[in-house]
Amino acid sequence: MNDLSRLAIHTMTTKPWDLQTTAEKYAAAGVPAVTIWRQWLEGQKLTEIRRLMDDHGLRVSAHCRGGFFPAIDAADRQAAIDDNLRCIEEAAEIGAPMVVLVCGAVPGQSLFDSRQQIADGLAACIDQAAAANIKLAIEPLHPMYANDRSAINTLAQANDLCDQLASPWVGIAADVYHLWWDDQLEHEIVRAGDRIVGFHVCDWLTPTNDLLLDRGLMGAGCIDIPKIRSWIEQSGFDGWIEVEIFSKTHWERDQDQYLEEIKDAYLNHV
Amino acid sequence: MNDLSRLAIHTMTTKPWDLQTTAEKYAAAGVPAVTIWRQWLEGQKLTEIRRLMDDHGLRVSAHCRGGFFPAIDAADRQAAIDDNLRCIEEAAEIGAPMVVLVCGAVPGQSLFDSRQQIADGLAACIDQAAAANIKLAIEPLHPMYANDRSAINTLAQANDLCDQLASPWVGIAADVYHLWWDDQLEHEIVRAGDRIVGFHVCDWLTPTNDLLLDRGLMGAGCIDIPKIRSWIEQSGFDGWIEVEIFSKTHWERDQDQYLEEIKDAYLNHV
Repeated sequence: MNDLSRLAIHTMTTKPWDLQTTAEKYAAAGVPAVTIWRQWLEGQKLTEIRRLMDDHGLRVSAHCRGGFFPAIDAADRQAAIDDNLRCIEEAAEIGAPMVVLVCGAVPGQSLFDSRQQIADGLAACIDQAAAANIKLAIEPLHPMYANDRSAINTLAQANDLCDQLASPWVGIAADVYHLWWDDQLEHEIVRAGDRIVGFHVCDWLTPTNDLLLDRGLMGAGCIDIPKIRSWIEQSGFDGWIEVEIFSKTHWERDQDQYLEEIKDAYLNHV
Repeated sequence: MNDLSRLAIHTMTTKPWDLQTTAEKYAAAGVPAVTIWRQWLEGQKLTEIRRLMDDHGLRVSAHCRGGFFPAIDAADRQAAIDDNLRCIEEAAEIGAPMVVLVCGAVPGQSLFDSRQQIADGLAACIDQAAAANIKLAIEPLHPMYANDRSAINTLAQANDLCDQLASPWVGIAADVYHLWWDDQLEHEIVRAGDRIVGFHVCDWLTPTNDLLLDRGLMGAGCIDIPKIRSWIEQSGFDGWIEVEIFSKTHWERDQDQYLEEIKDAYLNHV
């Protein structure tokens, strides 16, 4: 029987709410953890964000998101690394155990080049991650995002990258939306083992009317989330289960009611 | 140096044209071959279609499309097999050397079940394909179509299916749009070898505004088509290079001018 004890929600899921509102609403609804996106940090003191979370009894499940390492110019790649180092510091200050990485891609650039730049960028962040006690979680993205968001598009590629970097500070965030279609998924989850440090859920809608902003509540689509969860848990994962939904449709609705539906969907379809 | 001698175009690419117009326009433009979609057969005698092609000096590169084998009910799966048997007959009558297969999926049904139903359906068509001298070309579709169009989403899966069926009448249609993102692509093309009987080109646009109907002309997007073509040809492929573009944008334009742009794009970006 599910309960809410492992539920985390991304601030992006209830995008209309600012951080103060998010904290109040999640706490009142019995949601124990929140993954905070960087936009919600703007104009705020990190110590106050931490206090806001503590005051509401909320844990921070992850800081989202770093990455976007590839760039045409070396100076831009260094700027991306510098930005990721700041992101790691932020994660430590707000009490998040990891930074989720959307690894990046440059439209039109060879995916082979982008993947090398991702490996180089990640390697340059490992020392800081270790010093701050923050995991770097590679999130493989659906192949439909290969040209502009991430050149890492399967769990196999994330595992290969982990093999290459060989650091206990580099792990994987597995999102059912990106990975569900892959016939190698169970095999690669076994291969990943304790590299999996994050688990994201939502659902794939048919039809999907927007490549980015038309994700569904768990149970509204075709993904067999309980099966993937069982594979993930057999690999040893017992962390937060993070609800991450980008949806123009849901953002336009009453967010209080939507939050109740998220809880129901979590209890019944995860 | 490219010339037009291997260019084929799908009737779906210039969707506004009926088959008579297609034949006249392609012949006048020096396009030597056409892949005919089944919709263009409706209400026509197949012998007349063959004569129309012959009269215009056009070859038929493929018949498009069979497949859609999965279904919840056994009776519906048998109906799909029967329909594919008719499609094989049609291909033989219009002079096409192969039937392109969009293998199918049932929204919400397990992809493992769909894949088994696809294998069973294909197996039931092999004798007829052999008798008619028609290849069955499995077209792996992009993972974003996994829930509703095809549960076969990588070249690796198509190769696995070919291994399983072990028939010289079962081959693969490789479309750059569906496969370009895959880091295993070169490896799987080598593995496929002479199984590759069809090669489709278009381009991936960023942003992509519609999952189905926003494909680009070759050169308008991010796919390194010449590199993929070189891999395909190193595997021994020397057949038609088929331009298959679904695009609301292009369908709304002047089709004569568009046909000239297709030729230019083929000569310069394939």
